[in-house]
This record gives sequence, C-alpha cells and structure tokens, in this order.
Amino acid sequence: MNIDSVDLYYLRMPTVTDAADGSQDALLVRIRAGDHEGWGECEGSPLPCIAAWCTPMSHGACRPVEDSVLGMPIDEPDDIRGINALVRDQSLDLLQAAHTLSGVDAALWDLLARAREVPVHTLLGATTTHAKLPYASVLFGDTPEETLERGRECRAAGFGAVKFGWGPFGRGSVDEDLALAEAAREGIGDDRHLMIDVGTRWIDDVGALEVRARRLAELDVTWIEEPFRSHELSAYAAAAAIDPHVPVATGEGAHEPAIAEQLIRHGRIDFVQIDAGRIGGITAAREVAEFARDLPVQYVNHSFTSSLALAASLAPYWDLEDSRFCEYPFAPSSLCREMTTTNIEVAADGLVHPPEAPGLGVTPDERAIERYRVPLEISVDGQTLFSG
Amino acid sequence: MNIDSVDLYYLRMPTVTDAADGSQDALLVRIRAGDHEGWGECEGSPLPCIAAWCTPMSHGACRPVEDSVLGMPIDEPDDIRGINALVRDQSLDLLQAAHTLSGVDAALWDLLARAREVPVHTLLGATTTHAKLPYASVLFGDTPEETLERGRECRAAGFGAVKFGWGPFGRGSVDEDLALAEAAREGIGDDRHLMIDVGTRWIDDVGALEVRARRLAELDVTWIEEPFRSHELSAYAAAAAIDPHVPVATGEGAHEPAIAEQLIRHGRIDFVQIDAGRIGGITAAREVAEFARDLPVQYVNHSFTSSLALAASLAPYWDLEDSRFCEYPFAPSSLCREMTTTNIEVAADGLVHPPEAPGLGVTPDERAIERYRVPLEISVDGQTLFSG
Repeated sequence: MNIDSVDLYYLRMPTVTDAADGSQDALLVRIRAGDHEGWGECEGSPLPCIAAWCTPMSHGACRPVEDSVLGMPIDEPDDIRGINALVRDQSLDLLQAAHTLSGVDAALWDLLARAREVPVHTLLGATTTHAKLPYASVLFGDTPEETLERGRECRAAGFGAVKFGWGPFGRGSVDEDLALAEAAREGIGDDRHLMIDVGTRWIDDVGALEVRARRLAELDVTWIEEPFRSHELSAYAAAAAIDPHVPVATGEGAHEPAIAEQLIRHGRIDFVQIDAGRIGGITAAREVAEFARDLPVQYVNHSFTSSLALAASLAPYWDLEDSRFCEYPFAPSSLCREMTTTNIEVAADGLVHPPEAPGLGVTPDERAIERYRVPLEISVDGQTLFSG
Repeated sequence: MNIDSVDLYYLRMPTVTDAADGSQDALLVRIRAGDHEGWGECEGSPLPCIAAWCTPMSHGACRPVEDSVLGMPIDEPDDIRGINALVRDQSLDLLQAAHTLSGVDAALWDLLARAREVPVHTLLGATTTHAKLPYASVLFGDTPEETLERGRECRAAGFGAVKFGWGPFGRGSVDEDLALAEAAREGIGDDRHLMIDVGTRWIDDVGALEVRARRLAELDVTWIEEPFRSHELSAYAAAAAIDPHVPVATGEGAHEPAIAEQLIRHGRIDFVQIDAGRIGGITAAREVAEFARDLPVQYVNHSFTSSLALAASLAPYWDLEDSRFCEYPFAPSSLCREMTTTNIEVAADGLVHPPEAPGLGVTPDERAIERYRVPLEISVDGQTLFSG
C-alpha cells in the first residue's frame, strides 16, 4: 500500500498559560494508506511544525517534510525507516522538521501495526515485555507547603515514584531549592522514588548542582533531571564526577538519536529520557533504546501530553528489562484527557503494562478533535498551502 | 531606545530547484528602534522561521520569538546578549527558534553598531583585524570534466582557495569520488587550496573517509567538510585518528554554541565552520570564536547566500589571526547579488578585508526586496498572525 493522505490537526485549550505545562496544545497526525489508518502526535509548537510539513522548498536539502512522505510505499517496517532517513536527508537544513517527522513516524508505525493486528512494540522486534513503574510527573508548588500537599496527593493516588519539576525550583537560592526538595520528599514519604526536574535552568553551571549534591543525596533522589541544556556535554560529564553522586537524567531535548547517544557516551548520564514526539519518532527512539540496551544507562520515556503521545513514547523500550521507570502525566489538561477514547491507566499493581491492542493501542476521539481544533490557514504567493 | 518594530521579508527566485544552492530564497529581518535601523538574514527555511516568530504560545518554555524581542531596550551590547538568552529560555522547546533568532540577533548588532557609527566587529570587542583568504564555494560538476572546467574558472577568477561540494560527490563509488577530487585539483592547480564538502552524505560512516584518506592527503586537501552529520561526535573523533590525517571541517549545522564547542572538544575537528544565520546570530557565533581562540582549531565562517549574511558570518572572527580562511559564495543567485546595494568584494590582493562602514557595512536594496518578495499570510483561529 501507499501513503494516500496525511492530515494535521492543531488542537488547543481555550486558554493557554505560561506554566511549563506541555499539555495545553497538541498537533495530531492522521495517515491513511489503503484501508488503514494510523495516528501520531508531534511534541512541538504546532504552527512551525505544520509550516515544516508544507513549506515551499528552499533548496535540495531544505525541502518540506511532505516531499518525503506522500505517496511512499508502506508495507514493511523498513519502509518506515526509509521514510525517516529520507526526511533527515531531504530536510537536513529545516530544523523544525525533526518535530514534524516525529508525529508522522509514530502514525506510520501505528498504521502498519494496526494493519498487521499487532502492537507497535511487536513490530519493532520486542519478544519480551516488562511492566514499568510510573512516576507521576507534577510541577513544584509555588511554596514548600504547596509542594508538600502535591506530594501527599501523589502518594494518596498510589504512585510509587513522583517527579517534581519547574515552578520556582532553580530560580531562587540554594536554601529555597532544598526546602522545596525536602517538602517533596516529606509529601511522598520515604518509601517512594523522588525525582527532581531542573528544566535546564542551570544552563551549564555544574557548580549549581555541586552545592546541592550532598543534601539531594541525603534525600535519596533517584535522579536530578535536565540540570543543563541538551548540548552541554562537558557539563554533564563534570556532573558525573561529583561526589556524592547524584544520578542524572536528561535527553528530552534530543531531536536526533546521535544527540542522546553522545549524552550517554560522553556525558555519562544515568538515565536517558527520550520523547518519541521530538527525536524523530518511534524509529529514532528505538535506535536510542537499542544503543542503551547493554550500557550502564536506563532508558526512560519523556511524555507530558496525551495517552497517544504516551503510548508512542513507551513503545520503543518495553523489552528493556533494566529500564524500570516510565513518565506518567499526573494531571494533564482536559484536552489531553479527552483527546483519545481510551487512556493509558496505571494498573492495580501500581505498574503500567504494555498494550495488547493493535498499533499504539490508543484511538483519538474525533468529536474531541472537533471540539478543540484551531482553524489555521497558510498561503504563500496567493496559493493556499494549508487550510484546516 | 526600545525595539519598536521587527519586519520579516520572504524573498525568492522565480524558480527554485533541488540543487544544493542555498541562495535561492532568503528571509530578511529589519529592526527599528528610535531613529535607527538594522538588518539581518536568517539562514533557514523562511516559512517555518516566520512561524517561529509569531506562533501562538504552547506553554512557558515554548513561546514565539517575538515575545522576547518586541519592546525590549537596546542601548548596550549586553542588551542584545540578554535578548539572545531570553529567546533561548522562553523558546526552549521551539526548535526552529534558533534560525529565526539568528537573523534577529544580526539585525540588532547592525542597528546598535550603526547607531554608534562603528563596525559590528568593533562593538564585539575586536581591537585588531586580519584579512581573510576567501575560498570560492562552488558545487561539483556532474562529471570530472565539468568539475575540471569549474576549477579553471575559479583559478582564472583569481581565488587562492576553492571548495567543491555536493553534486555527485559521496553518492557514487570511491573511484568516482576520487576522480572528481582529482579533476578539482587539476582545475585549480597545485598552488591553490583545495577543500572538499561531503554535505553529511556519509552520515556517521568513518570507513567512507578512511578508504579515501590516502588519496585525499596526496591531493593535499586543506580540509574535508561535513563528512558526517553535526551530532555524530564519535564519528568525528574517530576521523581525527585516521592515518594519514585529512583535516576535517564542520559545524555549519550547529544551532547552539555548545554543539560547535563539543565538536571542537570531543570531535577534535580542525576547522569549525559557523553560520551566524543558524547558530543564534552574531552573539552565539562570537561565543564560539572566543572559545576557539586559543585552541588548535581554526574558525571559519559558513555563508552561501547574500553579502548581508556574509557580513554577519564574518563579523565574529576578524580578530582571530590564526583563522585564515573565509567562505565566499562564488556564484550566488541574482536574488542574492541584487539584494544589497553593495556587495562584499575580494580585494586586488586576493583577500577579503574587514568593513570600515558602520554596522555590518552592507545595506539591503528596498527595490530588490520588492522585486523578489513573496506574499505570505498566516491566520490562526480567524486572527491574522502574519501578513507581508
């Protein structure tokens, strides 16, 4: 079969705030080929992603993503890998293309797996699966008291691991940060995993981690996440040498497998966090999972939007037994809760189990799409390039 | 003074082909503050760059570039650096933002330097300047014969260095590649510098360079450029160890200073090539130049479009004496030749000299802009976000 159509849907909450909550809008991709359909989600700014899909060509290595997708055959997993490589080649100089490709690639895996009536992870070659321990992903409260309260809510909801991030953390003094971390630990209790997300605020300042390291180690932090920007390899390598060692997690900003791979190899990180909606889709994420398989690093999904994005981010590493954790958005927007007819749930044993349904196992709700859809028009030189 | 307005102009040749010729379209940025004006150019796909400028906010770390620019004060160089850092922070998750920021940042430096009536490099802190040896940047011919002819033309035009790239090189056999390289050397003669650009076609295949290394060394290649993709650090590190050593150049794909810095540090490259139109503007490019200053690496500009982009790419390293070369587009499109009222010329001594005029020393021609301008409209939710 050949790719007959690709449709992009820009969805948005009625109000978007400047909180670090990535679930306030979404870009969905629907692909049809023959009698089959697949869905994916881009974890990127919707308008620039759509522009990268349909922009006029600038030159041979700066083409729109659609040039490498529409009409292509899709009968085998290698066809998807070939499309992925073609986008990388033909859109080499189009930076945003990686985020657009990510949703397209996920939709292609969903489509082909549905056509074959197997889960995506089976199509990827996984022969075993291992349930993951979800960490509730929440924002720090504005104060230690609010943070304590949020921690208690997560504990009450039964989560065995909780990650706090953003909010005031990293913006104030060392003492203020540590007060937030202590409140988080108190809220969730000593028997749960605690992760802390700096959201790149220290940029490349290794000293900022160093002065907090002893107390973070005492608080038994499972990992400190994104202390530095994705490309600050030397800072990550220096952080790995801090005594006491605070395990470091990062990688969500990677838009190519090589970026994640060098964070593992040269940055010596402990957890590599991959967003299949950014790195170039399930194809690229699986490449990192294979790379990580026998190295002293745990693979973790990054996902902070819908169950569709969550399913795509989980698909690449169900067979990695040593990679125990998975991110699980604790309180996404109504848009992201309503976007799919089913949501991925935490089971009674406190774990997230691999889907048995074909494809990604999650189906978008077309009525919710209509409800949250944002009309968008792009015209260049009098010609409509996008209308939807 | 404060930034009063930012205008983006999408220009394009009447026909755009799939040749690897980046001069077929352009995105110009005009900024006005008080009584002053500055111009910059983004080296990126125009529509996605414009979308990154004006897109609706997705969340606090995925804002449009305009949010960090409009209305901001610009009285000191540190104001420009502050705006640059703010865009990086507030548009962290908007991948394309780096290319948009690049043109904006260049326009800010042009504006402030014009206001102070000094060249941009003076405002950057350069106290000495050193003329650069330009290499004519041309595409390989489709055959060795065509390549030989192009080499002769460049020699006749007086260039002391010539870089051949793209075309069939790297797509065929080892013998075919070497026949092209030999023809290039024969065309320009033994007394000129020869550079060869692989355009990332070997992706991460170190062996592809290894099997060609002996002959390339015999041909006295000054550098082999972009054998691998920008993030393939391990491949670059392995290439540095090949015997005989073929000097390696890369970096044009860097969209953050840290990417270039790790190519120098971990990839052990010999030449770092920075496009100020991609890396985050003159601010970011200067950061790499400062980093490279005392390391065993030469800084080289990357530029393949207009004299405005060329001037911005040259500004960061006039004071680096050991960085001898500069890229000089040999045959850009009529759009890029006509876009500015003056063009940067190679002097009678075969060198490119630093501009003495205020700002970037190059002024766009408003009539040429009107001639090549492409009308563009973007509307979201019934509201016009861009019309120009």
